[in-house]
Amino acid sequence: MNKGGTMSKVAIVMGSDSDLSTMRAAGDFLTKMGIEYEYNIISAHREPDIFFKWARELRNRGIKVVIAGAGKAAHLPGMCAALTPLPVIGVPIKTSDLGGVDSLYSIVQMPGGIPVATVAINGAKNAGILATKMLALNDEGLFDKLEKFSDEMAKEVEAKDGKLKSVGVDAFLKG
Amino acid sequence: MNKGGTMSKVAIVMGSDSDLSTMRAAGDFLTKMGIEYEYNIISAHREPDIFFKWARELRNRGIKVVIAGAGKAAHLPGMCAALTPLPVIGVPIKTSDLGGVDSLYSIVQMPGGIPVATVAINGAKNAGILATKMLALNDEGLFDKLEKFSDEMAKEVEAKDGKLKSVGVDAFLKG
Amino acid sequence: MNKGGTMSKVAIVMGSDSDLSTMRAAGDFLTKMGIEYEYNIISAHREPDIFFKWARELRNRGIKVVIAGAGKAAHLPGMCAALTPLPVIGVPIKTSDLGGVDSLYSIVQMPGGIPVATVAINGAKNAGILATKMLALNDEGLFDKLEKFSDEMAKEVEAKDGKLKSVGVDAFLKG
Amino acid sequence: MNKGGTMSKVAIVMGSDSDLSTMRAAGDFLTKMGIEYEYNIISAHREPDIFFKWARELRNRGIKVVIAGAGKAAHLPGMCAALTPLPVIGVPIKTSDLGGVDSLYSIVQMPGGIPVATVAINGAKNAGILATKMLALNDEGLFDKLEKFSDEMAKEVEAKDGKLKSVGVDAFLKG
Amino acid sequence: MNKGGTMSKVAIVMGSDSDLSTMRAAGDFLTKMGIEYEYNIISAHREPDIFFKWARELRNRGIKVVIAGAGKAAHLPGMCAALTPLPVIGVPIKTSDLGGVDSLYSIVQMPGGIPVATVAINGAKNAGILATKMLALNDEGLFDKLEKFSDEMAKEVEAKDGKLKSVGVDAFLKG
Amino acid sequence: MNKGGTMSKVAIVMGSDSDLSTMRAAGDFLTKMGIEYEYNIISAHREPDIFFKWARELRNRGIKVVIAGAGKAAHLPGMCAALTPLPVIGVPIKTSDLGGVDSLYSIVQMPGGIPVATVAINGAKNAGILATKMLALNDEGLFDKLEKFSDEMAKEVEAKDGKLKSVGVDAFLKG
Amino acid sequence: MNKGGTMSKVAIVMGSDSDLSTMRAAGDFLTKMGIEYEYNIISAHREPDIFFKWARELRNRGIKVVIAGAGKAAHLPGMCAALTPLPVIGVPIKTSDLGGVDSLYSIVQMPGGIPVATVAINGAKNAGILATKMLALNDEGLFDKLEKFSDEMAKEVEAKDGKLKSVGVDAFLKG
Amino acid sequence: MNKGGTMSKVAIVMGSDSDLSTMRAAGDFLTKMGIEYEYNIISAHREPDIFFKWARELRNRGIKVVIAGAGKAAHLPGMCAALTPLPVIGVPIKTSDLGGVDSLYSIVQMPGGIPVATVAINGAKNAGILATKMLALNDEGLFDKLEKFSDEMAKEVEAKDGKLKSVGVDAFLKG
Repeated sequence: MNKGGTMSKVAIVMGSDSDLSTMRAAGDFLTKMGIEYEYNIISAHREPDIFFKWARELRNRGIKVVIAGAGKAAHLPGMCAALTPLPVIGVPIKTSDLGGVDSLYSIVQMPGGIPVATVAINGAKNAGILATKMLALNDEGLFDKLEKFSDEMAKEVEAKDGKLKSVGVDAFLKG
Repeated sequence: MNKGGTMSKVAIVMGSDSDLSTMRAAGDFLTKMGIEYEYNIISAHREPDIFFKWARELRNRGIKVVIAGAGKAAHLPGMCAALTPLPVIGVPIKTSDLGGVDSLYSIVQMPGGIPVATVAINGAKNAGILATKMLALNDEGLFDKLEKFSDEMAKEVEAKDGKLKSVGVDAFLKG
Repeated sequence: MNKGGTMSKVAIVMGSDSDLSTMRAAGDFLTKMGIEYEYNIISAHREPDIFFKWARELRNRGIKVVIAGAGKAAHLPGMCAALTPLPVIGVPIKTSDLGGVDSLYSIVQMPGGIPVATVAINGAKNAGILATKMLALNDEGLFDKLEKFSDEMAKEVEAKDGKLKSVGVDAFLKG
Repeated sequence: MNKGGTMSKVAIVMGSDSDLSTMRAAGDFLTKMGIEYEYNIISAHREPDIFFKWARELRNRGIKVVIAGAGKAAHLPGMCAALTPLPVIGVPIKTSDLGGVDSLYSIVQMPGGIPVATVAINGAKNAGILATKMLALNDEGLFDKLEKFSDEMAKEVEAKDGKLKSVGVDAFLKG
Repeated sequence: MNKGGTMSKVAIVMGSDSDLSTMRAAGDFLTKMGIEYEYNIISAHREPDIFFKWARELRNRGIKVVIAGAGKAAHLPGMCAALTPLPVIGVPIKTSDLGGVDSLYSIVQMPGGIPVATVAINGAKNAGILATKMLALNDEGLFDKLEKFSDEMAKEVEAKDGKLKSVGVDAFLKG
Repeated sequence: MNKGGTMSKVAIVMGSDSDLSTMRAAGDFLTKMGIEYEYNIISAHREPDIFFKWARELRNRGIKVVIAGAGKAAHLPGMCAALTPLPVIGVPIKTSDLGGVDSLYSIVQMPGGIPVATVAINGAKNAGILATKMLALNDEGLFDKLEKFSDEMAKEVEAKDGKLKSVGVDAFLKG
Repeated sequence: MNKGGTMSKVAIVMGSDSDLSTMRAAGDFLTKMGIEYEYNIISAHREPDIFFKWARELRNRGIKVVIAGAGKAAHLPGMCAALTPLPVIGVPIKTSDLGGVDSLYSIVQMPGGIPVATVAINGAKNAGILATKMLALNDEGLFDKLEKFSDEMAKEVEAKDGKLKSVGVDAFLKG
Repeated sequence: MNKGGTMSKVAIVMGSDSDLSTMRAAGDFLTKMGIEYEYNIISAHREPDIFFKWARELRNRGIKVVIAGAGKAAHLPGMCAALTPLPVIGVPIKTSDLGGVDSLYSIVQMPGGIPVATVAINGAKNAGILATKMLALNDEGLFDKLEKFSDEMAKEVEAKDGKLKSVGVDAFLKG
């Protein structure tokens, strides 16, 4: 994570620090990929001027991809997409009453002209992967890293399958 | 409807002219109440600068209440409410795929601090009534007009009940 | 909170005391704004006569805005709106089985003629803010207070953003 | 259908004449059963005084069962149930945006103490049958009629099964 | 509760003993009203022959009203209604995954001809009240008891309102 | 289609002839596979005795698989599954108000012990395919036919892809 | 459970070991029926090559029925069904945000040509029963075992009903 | 549109030609941006071998971004994402029964590791825009074109607002 943020390629933004424990999975993946990024807590609703200025400057600052997480009537990702030409990835945050379907609809159902690349409810890790894929279009090394990550995932599943077949279901579930 | 809008008390705004045929029920009610208002087609997503400036100036221009209609990932009402201290009434527009539940969630589920006074899906007339009630807090004459409107509604229902009881269901349904 | 209620400007009403811990966020905000209000536990279903009389007298008693919270088949806000010309703000209470979507639909989907200004599920604080905005139309001092409240919200978010950028995500999440 | 309504056993009520073409299935079934009934167009929202008085008098007028149809934020059945000790049957009317799930939740999710006997969306005929079953508890002749009706239903299905098996699917579908 | 069930007026039935803690609210209300009833654990799915025979005999045994609770693909109430001419009240049981909306749809959306009087999710108490109202059509004394119960409900709410107004919200919430 | 039904391997059943135009896709597929089947219009709700007897005899009559289509509170497939040990495939029929989600939940959410093999809303063709797969477990020739059907499907898609690439999107859409 | 899996008749597969505690109910039922089966942890998303190869070989290895459990955007069952002519039973796994309705739709709403026999959310036991029914078409002994299982279920319910009627509701609920 | 597809940067894929009239909005936008693309009708379910091979070769063929549209249990986008490291944009197609919420969940709710960048139901145009944004990260000229497109959108809205204010609502709606 960049503290100053001057050289970040990915800006991760959320409207409230209560989303940080969910959203950090995006940053953690970018760290693993060796991609510079920054966290921002900026609310489109509570500080629209700051938000507006921040979103307008993203491209000039060298940011390439935005990851925006928001819950309930989640306007942050869509308003980002209205203010910057950069691709914006939206992460709908799970809500305690409607489970996050409100966040999902508010992010994914964008009108024609202003897309938000939406991932699953609480899917911050996938947002990090998607950002990496976008950056990889211009950086072959990232495709290699993504491939390695894919191999690891495959091996993990294989290992679990092997263990289950070797120890049986009871022993496996006991840990 | 004010064409110049300089003296309007209510600003009716929608992001697309495709919402106008629904939203005009708000204006029509205000006309009936003798309240000055204006229509605006302004998109928070497609022209955020214009929208921001417009929303910031509302109060200085003498506007008292905002009525904002929007469909799908409907950010317009909530972003209005973030930019003006005036009360904002939100009208979720019916959508062809999800019936308007996406619009409803995107408008009503606002986070703490930034309320939108939400009415029913396609409930533009009720938005006009609600705006009138707010203005009536400072204008007794409007309460009289609202009361008259209520009486008319009651009488309409009574008349239909009377007719049904007099002619019977078959004749009534034939018109 | 007014105990007698004789001079209240806002009447907060709920059908059951089980909603009080949620609804008090409305009153707490009004206290912060220096607005007189009263709490009422009155059930449209369980004591319709008392409810009817109470709702009919609201305007004569000097009440300006009603905030009504209700859950499940939530009829209280809508029936208030049928009985008083005052603006009624509805707060859908979260339910244990359907998450509050039943309360939301029962409050927001009012027929033409009888609007309820609906806020988010469990959004009592926003109901208090909305009531303040309505009263501010006739009291400039309240707009100043609302602005101060908005500034505080913005500063809180800024402070959190600053802290996160200064201490990093791990330290931030540890508290 | 009773035009005067003085001797009706079942009161069918709806808030708007637009529900009449759906609700008449209830009355038509009662006619078939030889049960006196009346139609009422009375709105709990638009003429609450008339509604209150009407609902309070139902039992004294000799009404035994109420059938109330309503759409959207459908308060009519529940408010009836709050005002009369008679059993109230609720018919959720299909809505153009949410399909009637709003009407259904607003009618069926009544709080403890005030039940509404809810039937399917647009299920007015079943409301008529349910009313008949309630009245049959005190009138053996009605059980005989219900049984006859059940037999007819069974025979209709049998006849169709027979026809399909005799003519085959193509001929059957051609009519 | 009748142990033998020979003289019960109301049969309460559920497909699984896991529903009993919810369903007993129906029986408890009937006890309060002095109405004889019986509990039955009978599964339409797991013992269809027993169920079939049981449902067919209900009316001959003197049962007047059936209360059937069921969860998930809840067929018990509807199949009861297919097998007995008696009025059947359905109680949708809350489910851990879909919150009970599956149970609700499976019970309330009955096809024309076979109604189930559906109450709220987990609304067993209201099922008991509804059964009482049906029996009261033929027993004036029950209407008196229902009225007394209504008065008690009203007084409870009034007492809470009085206490809240007297002690204030903080003391009230502390208990 | 078997008219007498004495030698059918698959019984297709629906509660109403209004489902026949949807359900016949199941039979048409079985015809294509050379599998004997029969159509039955039998209602679990309207003629429970006939239905019970019919379902109980299925296995003795040599039926191997049941395909049951039903809409709304769709009990037919689940009650079949309660009455016969044969595998039962359920087809949820689309409904005009809830789109078929009521039918789907009523069929798929069966309690433990009584499964229904549920296919998509209006997925009658897939029900026919599924039945064929079950019968193929004991008839290698059917697997060959299924494979041929799969090849046809693949070739159809390939042909369309080829045509689109050859004529371009405009010409393709013009037909 | 087969460790080597060479002679299994049923292949149980899931994409993640986190589903194993739910899915084992399928295997446990097959054990009870004396049917050989195997567990596989194979991810269509994370190791598509392994998955592809595995699914293609199922029939040649002598597998007769596949049971596939998956959550969220649950593609495993449908992709199995695309790769093997064997009948595939899908088990939608409950999800923490949407309750499993996402899993359900992703499994049951398969397009024409590629059916998945879907059971209830978390209905792994029913998947085991359904697999047994399919195998029983070619093995009368399994029908006997299924019948015995059905009898046991019926007796369990009867025993609970008997106990409830003998000890009463209070004692029953105390355990 | 590339007919041969050898030099395409974006591959647009759908499982059925019935989605083409919706999906072509993606291609049309790419044409406007001067980006080479290709249409493919390839079904993951009906021709999995062709699909697998096709998806595996995408990157080697020089494709940079995939746009995949699918309806119902929409597996195509997610399976693409499992088979290629390229970013995959998913377009949920509206369905006639569930409105497309099934398609949406099946595409957006991908498990950790395999993201799909999901746009609105039927949001093919936005998929084209999103693909352009990804390619623009490596091609400044595309950002200029996107900016010009944004300006056009803004001007269109402004023009409509101007017209409405000039001619009034009645004339505007008459066209």
